[in-house]
Amino acid sequence: MAQSRITIIGTGLIGTSLGLALAGKKERTYEIIGIDRDRNNSRLAKKMGAIDREVGSLEEGLTGAAVVFLTVPVMAARRLLQDMGPYLAEGAIVSDTCSTKSDLMRWAAEYLPEEVHFIGGHPMAGREKSGPGAATGDLFQGATWAIAPSPRASEQSVQVILGLVEAMGAIPFYIDGAEHDQWAAAVSHLPLLASVALFRMVRDSQGWEDAALIAGPGFKDMTRLASGDATMARDIMVTNRDAIVHWLGRFEAELDKMRTALDAGDDSIFDIFASTQLDRDVYITNPITRRKPDGPTAPSAGDQMGMLLLGGKLHDKLKDMPGRAADRTRNNDRDLRRKLGAGDDNGAR
Amino acid sequence: MAQSRITIIGTGLIGTSLGLALAGKKERTYEIIGIDRDRNNSRLAKKMGAIDREVGSLEEGLTGAAVVFLTVPVMAARRLLQDMGPYLAEGAIVSDTCSTKSDLMRWAAEYLPEEVHFIGGHPMAGREKSGPGAATGDLFQGATWAIAPSPRASEQSVQVILGLVEAMGAIPFYIDGAEHDQWAAAVSHLPLLASVALFRMVRDSQGWEDAALIAGPGFKDMTRLASGDATMARDIMVTNRDAIVHWLGRFEAELDKMRTALDAGDDSIFDIFASTQLDRDVYITNPITRRKPDGPTAPSAGDQMGMLLLGGKLHDKLKDMPGRAADRTRNNDRDLRRKLGAGDDNGAR
Repeated sequence: MAQSRITIIGTGLIGTSLGLALAGKKERTYEIIGIDRDRNNSRLAKKMGAIDREVGSLEEGLTGAAVVFLTVPVMAARRLLQDMGPYLAEGAIVSDTCSTKSDLMRWAAEYLPEEVHFIGGHPMAGREKSGPGAATGDLFQGATWAIAPSPRASEQSVQVILGLVEAMGAIPFYIDGAEHDQWAAAVSHLPLLASVALFRMVRDSQGWEDAALIAGPGFKDMTRLASGDATMARDIMVTNRDAIVHWLGRFEAELDKMRTALDAGDDSIFDIFASTQLDRDVYITNPITRRKPDGPTAPSAGDQMGMLLLGGKLHDKLKDMPGRAADRTRNNDRDLRRKLGAGDDNGAR
Repeated sequence: MAQSRITIIGTGLIGTSLGLALAGKKERTYEIIGIDRDRNNSRLAKKMGAIDREVGSLEEGLTGAAVVFLTVPVMAARRLLQDMGPYLAEGAIVSDTCSTKSDLMRWAAEYLPEEVHFIGGHPMAGREKSGPGAATGDLFQGATWAIAPSPRASEQSVQVILGLVEAMGAIPFYIDGAEHDQWAAAVSHLPLLASVALFRMVRDSQGWEDAALIAGPGFKDMTRLASGDATMARDIMVTNRDAIVHWLGRFEAELDKMRTALDAGDDSIFDIFASTQLDRDVYITNPITRRKPDGPTAPSAGDQMGMLLLGGKLHDKLKDMPGRAADRTRNNDRDLRRKLGAGDDNGAR
């Protein structure tokens, strides 16, 4: 094989942005293949230069691929994991960009051949619009990118993904799949529900047209997530339902606190606003430092590109990888439950 | 008097942006005066070129002013309305940019001299940051600007405000004060509460540091309003409490619908996501057309600037204005209640 091959399955907003970020690297010798159920998408991705070639079957796309990214909604990723095994080379690396990780990690372990390395991933980036037309090569620039290696992924395969993530300008960090899903429910999935609920509340009121007239940038920001892809949103709810329901209860408990403060008069509501303003300003101006990966050290983007520039040799390297790396699960279940404040549920509805 | 005089009381984000938008007009002959309780603010506004002169007392600032903008939180505006009467010239125009209108309109009627024209206003614009340092001259460009003239404001005084609003690049439209407050509660004040509740929910959880690591642009957008000025937020809650509590109930009812859909399985939640995505896309790509003012026609920005360029003559014009214009209240209470879906409250908590 003359070139290393990276295959992107799903050339929507994320897949095409990923392709653009990798295709733009100078002197690359890897080839980028794209597949999409809707070939209009993959053809547009090719036209945009995000992929070198678009193919129409899994067999064609996966044969000889060194790295495969599943950039589709999580339920579609499940079906792909079920179907892709026969076409994957020994030592191939499979990663994804799905919004939830626990179920996916389980399915990967269940469906993928043992000699394939699965490394879950989730870039914390997105746009209001979906589809390849909304893709940009800098979508991941500065974004955090959660990395959840499966226990049997080799150190070297993790390094390959870390390197690619850094080459795209993102900041990788390790997280356990279950832990990822809990925090994602709090900072991403519950906000999505709240955004949809807020839009529906106003949209379904009889005064919608009058209300829309005075809706400013605040309303637009608060309802942006409601414009996200419906299939992706549904899949998130299906695969992370319990965590989302937990945080929904906590959110409603917070709203009740606000109501109580409104009833109590202006001092208590002022205190809430003032302390929140302060806390959020600290969060924005002094972001919490990202923890260094506690597993393999990520090679610099340059080193990683160097590896890929070896051309066909990457594929051979992958075949030599050790079959099982140390378990990198950072937190045990009890620690996670403590952080989630288990027992707080009394306050939630 | 050699020049028309515009006085801005409160040189924070909004007042200073307003000054910058008006000061930048070519060949203007009006003078812009700024006052702030915190003179560091007004001095900075002067340094930025938003005002020509900063003064230290109401008397100094208001004497000879043709137009006065109250750009302060609504409870501070109340105190100003109580105190400013003695210094206002006959025929002077007073407007504001406060977030709520009903109480303010009542206070203006109660406290201002009869021969002063009060025209409530509310630009639908803002930023995460507050203070004059965050001000920009294009803050109001393309923004809607609610205009609620008091019954005794003259047609000509309304024209002056419409012209200034258009000169700042905003799109004025008439709205009844009570109606404004109802819709603002839905699209602005309840979203503010939700934003604060969401931030507190995550910030107060024991896993905050882990959650913050994977928080992406969605969480930032959804909590942006929580960084707003706490005094302004408190004043909004105090002066629009009933409407906000009403919409809080409706928001919680929407969240309950989401929970029910989550329990029911993936089809019903998918339907909600899909229809909301569609409705919001229409809202964004095909904004509801702004209704034309049904009162006086706004002069073009050029004409209005022409009026102000007359220099001292504007002041004389203002003195000749008729004392009472037709009541422009567009909707009676029953109509408003219908639009609000009165009776829907059964569904709310």
